[in-house]
Amino acid sequence: MPQTVGERREQLKAALIDAAEAIIARDGLVALRARDLAAAAGCALGAIYNAFEDLDSIVFAVNMRTLALIDHNLHGASRRESTTWGVNSADPDIARLIRLAVAYLDFAAKHGPRWRALFEHRLRDGQAVPPWYAAELNRIFLFVEEPLRAIRPQLAAAELAQLARVLFSAVHGIVSLGLEEKLGEIEPHRLREQTAAIVTAIARGLRDPASA
Amino acid sequence: MPQTVGERREQLKAALIDAAEAIIARDGLVALRARDLAAAAGCALGAIYNAFEDLDSIVFAVNMRTLALIDHNLHGASRRESTTWGVNSADPDIARLIRLAVAYLDFAAKHGPRWRALFEHRLRDGQAVPPWYAAELNRIFLFVEEPLRAIRPQLAAAELAQLARVLFSAVHGIVSLGLEEKLGEIEPHRLREQTAAIVTAIARGLRDPASA
Repeated sequence: MPQTVGERREQLKAALIDAAEAIIARDGLVALRARDLAAAAGCALGAIYNAFEDLDSIVFAVNMRTLALIDHNLHGASRRESTTWGVNSADPDIARLIRLAVAYLDFAAKHGPRWRALFEHRLRDGQAVPPWYAAELNRIFLFVEEPLRAIRPQLAAAELAQLARVLFSAVHGIVSLGLEEKLGEIEPHRLREQTAAIVTAIARGLRDPASA
Repeated sequence: MPQTVGERREQLKAALIDAAEAIIARDGLVALRARDLAAAAGCALGAIYNAFEDLDSIVFAVNMRTLALIDHNLHGASRRESTTWGVNSADPDIARLIRLAVAYLDFAAKHGPRWRALFEHRLRDGQAVPPWYAAELNRIFLFVEEPLRAIRPQLAAAELAQLARVLFSAVHGIVSLGLEEKLGEIEPHRLREQTAAIVTAIARGLRDPASA
């Protein structure tokens, strides 16, 4: 049965996202060029812009897949009962936050180029983040909000959402400067320990604000 | 009196660093190209490589000046008795850590391109950080180590130095994702409050590890 125009367009879109994903996962966002992408997807240069508005839209589609992978890993880390890497806490909420933070660190360490693409991708002025991308980003933070809610039950939902983002940002800073060894060399197990230590300190410091 | 060859070389080096600093401060590391730099410094393209081994060496010299500016700002924040921006702590050590973190945030907000150049600059394989640069970086962390020592007096010097770097990394994550609004829009005063809140939580959580 012959394909419709719409079917061919969807097929081309999927091929372009697959090709862009392979390029970004291997060589990073800096390596994504329209000409190479068209060659990898087996289409003409102009066909890219029939399928997508611009390269940014393709980057968002790839980053969406990366977020989904992180989502999957955090889901596992959130549910898992024990850990295998020697840093833990007797407090189940803190233990869960540590598992999430170390799962994020491990993902970043394993998938450097595509993980960095999440943060290197800059929008042009006036360009907005697609709503489906923002929704997936929000899903990621729900994993962090759940144990934080147990630690700070009195917080309003908006404050809890904000706190989850700040905690994520702090962990992200340790992961990104640590993996790039920006502040000196550091062994992987030490980086895990340090990530766990700072998450523990933050969670303990948040638990009882009355005694500040 | 005529200049010696050595004097002329030093003068050219200073002119190249000045020109590179102006380019990076205005348009960021991405804008630094040898041809533009030679034009801005008023020398031939090849003269750059008589004065410096490579462009990386010039970037280190500019980043060294940026570190010195940060050093100066942290020095002021470390010594200052009061704050003017409404986030504080009754605990003098925590108050000092908050002042340092907010001074870093304010520097990053004001000097975006040259601040980002500190982290965007990547070394080629086998290339080492110059010792004078590493020494200036160490000086920066001494500001953080001082209040941390009061909070964790039992820590050995090497552990304290490491903890200061981890705390810096956490603050850096909040500052960089916050300023680039990677996780959503955020007003400057809210970013200051969040930075102060997480520094407070970390410091409180670190102060009494026995009750963990």
